Amino acid sequence: MKTLQVNLAERSYPIFIGRDLLQQAALVEPYVKAQQVMIVSNETVAPLYLSAVKTAFAQFHTRTVILPDGETYKNLSVLNQIFDALLEAHCDRHTTVVALGGGVVGDMAGFAAACYQRGVPFIQIPTTLLAQVDSSVGGKTGVNHSLGKNMIGAFHQPQAVVIDTNTLNTLDDRQLSAGLAEVVKYGLIRDAAFFAWLERMYPALLQRDPKALAYAIERSCQCKADIVSQDEWEGGVRALLNLGHTFGHAIETGMGYGRVLHGEAIAIGMCLAAQMSVGLGWVGAEDLSRIENLLKALRLPTQMPAELNSPRVLNLMKVDKKVRQGRIYLVLLKAIGDGIITDDYEITQLKQVLNA
Amino acid sequence: MKTLQVNLAERSYPIFIGRDLLQQAALVEPYVKAQQVMIVSNETVAPLYLSAVKTAFAQFHTRTVILPDGETYKNLSVLNQIFDALLEAHCDRHTTVVALGGGVVGDMAGFAAACYQRGVPFIQIPTTLLAQVDSSVGGKTGVNHSLGKNMIGAFHQPQAVVIDTNTLNTLDDRQLSAGLAEVVKYGLIRDAAFFAWLERMYPALLQRDPKALAYAIERSCQCKADIVSQDEWEGGVRALLNLGHTFGHAIETGMGYGRVLHGEAIAIGMCLAAQMSVGLGWVGAEDLSRIENLLKALRLPTQMPAELNSPRVLNLMKVDKKVRQGRIYLVLLKAIGDGIITDDYEITQLKQVLNA
Repeated sequence: MKTLQVNLAERSYPIFIGRDLLQQAALVEPYVKAQQVMIVSNETVAPLYLSAVKTAFAQFHTRTVILPDGETYKNLSVLNQIFDALLEAHCDRHTTVVALGGGVVGDMAGFAAACYQRGVPFIQIPTTLLAQVDSSVGGKTGVNHSLGKNMIGAFHQPQAVVIDTNTLNTLDDRQLSAGLAEVVKYGLIRDAAFFAWLERMYPALLQRDPKALAYAIERSCQCKADIVSQDEWEGGVRALLNLGHTFGHAIETGMGYGRVLHGEAIAIGMCLAAQMSVGLGWVGAEDLSRIENLLKALRLPTQMPAELNSPRVLNLMKVDKKVRQGRIYLVLLKAIGDGIITDDYEITQLKQVLNA
Repeated sequence: MKTLQVNLAERSYPIFIGRDLLQQAALVEPYVKAQQVMIVSNETVAPLYLSAVKTAFAQFHTRTVILPDGETYKNLSVLNQIFDALLEAHCDRHTTVVALGGGVVGDMAGFAAACYQRGVPFIQIPTTLLAQVDSSVGGKTGVNHSLGKNMIGAFHQPQAVVIDTNTLNTLDDRQLSAGLAEVVKYGLIRDAAFFAWLERMYPALLQRDPKALAYAIERSCQCKADIVSQDEWEGGVRALLNLGHTFGHAIETGMGYGRVLHGEAIAIGMCLAAQMSVGLGWVGAEDLSRIENLLKALRLPTQMPAELNSPRVLNLMKVDKKVRQGRIYLVLLKAIGDGIITDDYEITQLKQVLNA
């Protein structure tokens, strides 16, 4: 087992990465402060891993709430099911919420923990690659609104993140690839050597070689932990983690939540960001090819879905957390391994990329 | 105009108290950081004061969302109307939300500001006595759940609080009395001299003597500001501000939100807390009489509504933010002007008071 640390003074916490961690009581017990525990999971993950996790929390008074599975359920109304469960069980302000599942479960359980009685502690147990390398770390929680993704939420750091890499064995291929999109992101924004490693090792990752996956997870979590430790509330450098996300969120919202997976939308978004960067003369055409080729090799889409037209995407991009005074700030690339947050481009350049 | 200060390091903010403040641009302009402003009000308050407030924000790009009026609308679904308005207007992360109304509007607009894009700034402009002396100060925001009051929320401090005492002229008598219940609370928990002043001055307050009301608001806000400055997240002393609230919230939830006003429920709750304190030998019967007499003089109820039975109230009290490991912590009185947070009582003593 590897242990990484997110350093945020009194809100610091560990990320445990390894095999057979789900049922280990010793890992989670130090982070549970009172008797009541509410495990939040979904109907896909619970049959697979809930009983193992219950073993880990056996010494506490543990209850469960099972949500429907999918991005389309990440909304205020399904969030209320978590509040119902907490209140029906008379859970108090010291209850620990446990998120067992992918990014949707983690974001919703985390947001419920942020708001329940104005804040209770929570633990992340991510079971998808995407959640393990990205969404479970850093304290961003929230739900979607029909007009914009992740528009309602809170910063609320977990007490601990437990990543059991065994859970990837049950992940379907499409979800695995979606997670790898976020792994590629770390290479692009600040780790050219990792990007090159991914270019060499992608067959091992797709074959679920445990060593390769564990390394990809560790390096991704280390990068995320470093950035979050520097900039918890996204005043600056943390926005780099949104490479491809302004495009990607617009695609997800435009297509209807759940039709394109988050990681797939981010893959397309990273290609569009790379194309913008080429147009600005920052990145060469050969680097764009490397990016597109790696994503294709990872079985990810690289082009805007045909049914979305460019004015609609542009309009959706204007509803983004990085918009300021009507200007859309984008994460672009100065090189592979060197991301930059900027509004230093012409709107015509953006339109050109969306039209292409 | 008086200016008080809530001292919370980088989250510090002023409370302005005076007449004719609503339309004063100079008061609010320093606290608005970007062009977009969203005023949240309700259908009762907007016709009275929205145009004055729009004058104050005239130099910004200001939009409005009007909610239905009443505690019964303080829920997640009506909250979503604020998110709808923010997203339809493409409001970005630097938008200032303005709460214009009573406690319900302030709590909901503040909670929407806490969650929109994971947090935007907001300004409180309370127009009821209750909101002016209590809920607009201190950063507690949130909505009700059918199973418990204020169970979903966030701590989110405003940029400024603007209290225009003229707005009390349009407040109906019942709302005025409800606000005075929270004023009495400050006297009871830590200001015996203020309690005695209220015993002398209640006729002036009921007659809406501007000087008397202004003094009551200032002294209440000063007390609240002092306590919040000491204990922002209610780890200790801040819980004193909940005198009567564990009883009161149970009454509000049990009766159905909106039937008993919050201040009325708190008045009943303070009487029950005082009776408990008498039973514990901490407070004499003559002090209980003083408390009940003052509340009655202020036209407030002092007895549990007949339609609520004691087991139901007790059960509802167990869903309270001050419950820990099944023990209900209560704010009780060692004397008039000396509140204490304690679970040092027998459950039979609580039942006795509820049965009486």
